[in-house]
Amino acid sequence: MPTNMISKVLEKVVLPPDVAPRVKAGAASRTSVLRNPNMQKLQKGYLFPEINRKREAHQKKYPEAKVISLGIGDTTEPIPRIITSAMAEYALALSTPEGYQGYGPEPGQKTLRKAIAEKVYPNMGIRDTEVFISDGAQCDIARLQMLFGRDVTIAVQDPTFPGYVDNGVIMGQTGDADESGRYGRIEYMRCAPENAFFPDLSLVPRTDVIFFCSPNNPTGHVASREQLQQLVDFARRNGSIVVFDTAYAAYVSESSPSPRSIYEIPGSREVAIEISSFSKSAGFTGVRLGWAVVPDELLYADGSHVAPDFDRIVCTCFNGASSLAQVGGLACIGSEEGAEAVRKVVRVYKENARLLVETFESLGKEVYGGVDSPYVWVRFPGRRSWEVFGEILEKTHVITVPGSGFGPGGEGFVRVSGFNNRDRVVEACARLRNFLA
Amino acid sequence: MPTNMISKVLEKVVLPPDVAPRVKAGAASRTSVLRNPNMQKLQKGYLFPEINRKREAHQKKYPEAKVISLGIGDTTEPIPRIITSAMAEYALALSTPEGYQGYGPEPGQKTLRKAIAEKVYPNMGIRDTEVFISDGAQCDIARLQMLFGRDVTIAVQDPTFPGYVDNGVIMGQTGDADESGRYGRIEYMRCAPENAFFPDLSLVPRTDVIFFCSPNNPTGHVASREQLQQLVDFARRNGSIVVFDTAYAAYVSESSPSPRSIYEIPGSREVAIEISSFSKSAGFTGVRLGWAVVPDELLYADGSHVAPDFDRIVCTCFNGASSLAQVGGLACIGSEEGAEAVRKVVRVYKENARLLVETFESLGKEVYGGVDSPYVWVRFPGRRSWEVFGEILEKTHVITVPGSGFGPGGEGFVRVSGFNNRDRVVEACARLRNFLA
Repeated sequence: MPTNMISKVLEKVVLPPDVAPRVKAGAASRTSVLRNPNMQKLQKGYLFPEINRKREAHQKKYPEAKVISLGIGDTTEPIPRIITSAMAEYALALSTPEGYQGYGPEPGQKTLRKAIAEKVYPNMGIRDTEVFISDGAQCDIARLQMLFGRDVTIAVQDPTFPGYVDNGVIMGQTGDADESGRYGRIEYMRCAPENAFFPDLSLVPRTDVIFFCSPNNPTGHVASREQLQQLVDFARRNGSIVVFDTAYAAYVSESSPSPRSIYEIPGSREVAIEISSFSKSAGFTGVRLGWAVVPDELLYADGSHVAPDFDRIVCTCFNGASSLAQVGGLACIGSEEGAEAVRKVVRVYKENARLLVETFESLGKEVYGGVDSPYVWVRFPGRRSWEVFGEILEKTHVITVPGSGFGPGGEGFVRVSGFNNRDRVVEACARLRNFLA
Repeated sequence: MPTNMISKVLEKVVLPPDVAPRVKAGAASRTSVLRNPNMQKLQKGYLFPEINRKREAHQKKYPEAKVISLGIGDTTEPIPRIITSAMAEYALALSTPEGYQGYGPEPGQKTLRKAIAEKVYPNMGIRDTEVFISDGAQCDIARLQMLFGRDVTIAVQDPTFPGYVDNGVIMGQTGDADESGRYGRIEYMRCAPENAFFPDLSLVPRTDVIFFCSPNNPTGHVASREQLQQLVDFARRNGSIVVFDTAYAAYVSESSPSPRSIYEIPGSREVAIEISSFSKSAGFTGVRLGWAVVPDELLYADGSHVAPDFDRIVCTCFNGASSLAQVGGLACIGSEEGAEAVRKVVRVYKENARLLVETFESLGKEVYGGVDSPYVWVRFPGRRSWEVFGEILEKTHVITVPGSGFGPGGEGFVRVSGFNNRDRVVEACARLRNFLA
């Protein structure tokens, strides 16, 4: 074999480390850097890439099929003009000497921080300096995990959005995963219809950090005031920090008795960080904008404040959200007109969710969520989630999300999302009725 | 004292951990979560906030003074219209059903990845799939440090941009800092006029990762082809990974013999990651856009590829750069008109830097950089950097950056930046001439 062919073959071959010779210059040469053991711990197949692969395979098998995605929670409604006009105007102003702006403050524009403190947290005593603007809740989860470091213990709901756990794995907080997908050193708090989607906290061991999401992704459950008071009291008793994810708070009706923020709960300022986002309300999934609230009263065991450390993380690992996105965010909440435009978008997805709930209920299915939430959580007793996902896709060309992708507690469920155009949701409902009837 | 007053006092008091009683509900209560020891290691006073504080104090002392900042490398020239028009148009299209887009691919839009591969790396064999779009080089440094994890050893230039070290500290790669500000377990490679700003690599111990920045921040030195070949050969011999930061590559003239990319150096694809940014070329410091290149040939010691792990980091800890910024980035490099508009902006800052070099040289000062770089590096033999910084501010109302802020090797220097309007730079030069003459 000529030498260049050997090189080519070598490039493709990955030999076990103890067998592989150190390849000389000219051929594929590996470094001596050890792979981060935490990256090795991460389980294969992040949920949505896996679903995408299955979708592509399905589309190849049925090239004519009109696949409808009620899978990944990606927004589809156009962003209201009042918001995009503000961003467009700002973009054009960047071409003028008066309108040009370079670096903004890393934790965000003062006006936006202030607007969030006042409009999102009215009468909750949140100060603008406690609001840290970000490029989205997922990125804030990563930054919070960097803040906490590898030595903390964490608890998560089961099922839950995978980001809390995966970022904890990357930071080295966990042991290896077992066959069920549970990582060592993480406390999984089962949330199921049987416990009103809220763990019996008397059975939950203390952890340093508790990640809690309401309205929940994936179950669509909105925690009641009593449940959240229990959570805050539990954290206070244990000296834990709650990271409360309210990415879907805009879905909670004005008339609902359920809180939209953890800061509606007395005592929360001393134990809770809140993260949230413009993604699922204003359709900023691509624009990228969110925020974290770290109250001044939140203290580490040594009495030092958490907020300055988080500020340091924001300044060191991040450089602020795009100024264009921040202008858009201000347009969302700075005026009543903007806020109403956003509410109108949210109502579209909520009605979609209602139609889905109605469909599954009319078929006698056990359905949860879908009220004050874009997500519908459907139980298929005795079935495996991936199997149900595959069957629905095969028979209706509708993409859902296997519940087990959110943790072992999601096994036997699928998540169906209200994020799509009305016509497609109506069509999906018709196909599902046909198939499940 | 009434109870509520006691609470108020307690809220302000931070007792040492061994003295502090666990305060009961109702009063300020600390959690039992231990502060991340890595955050404690970080040294106080990140450089630029410290400069800002001194600037504010100066402005209070001299309310009438027209302070000119040649400090932080923040862009001031408006963004060319061809770029902002593209962003504005895209923003408005987000309000239409046809133009709306939600989540993009986490590693960035295919068109932008392709444009970067082809336009920034012509004839260097970079594939679009090797380009990961980001919200800026600083954020990529953080993500790369998460990728590497706590067990790697790192080397940095001294002086250097503080982000490499600070993110390493946060990840737990280092020991404590000594009095000079050097952290344990980091290899500081002195770069000074005496060694042509390039370390004698025969004296540098092996580390897993080597951070190297050219054109350099803060020295303005542009590494020669021979120097970079030495660096790549050194990394190959040692099995190290080079993280090559080219945030200022656009400043290197077409006619310069110095490479703009590490991938101009034979053998680099097997050892080098490159990070770069639109911030300092197109003025995207606020818009936020950059990229990292992770070549397919880059392998860990176990033969596994680095790129898929970095992709996992991007998908888990990040959710992609703002779609608006990505459209802007494409407008910068997608057409010859856009590229020329960006070059015109860069020429403004380069001419500013030239004027500064000329000024210091005419005063008989030892000056480096300022050619193919926006940064001018001035030596004040026998003086402390902060002292010189203070004196220049006091006497000329001009903000510079103390060289020691970039590491002990920067002591005795100040960095003067060409990022400001021409009029202000000319005025600053006049003041400096006056003061230093």
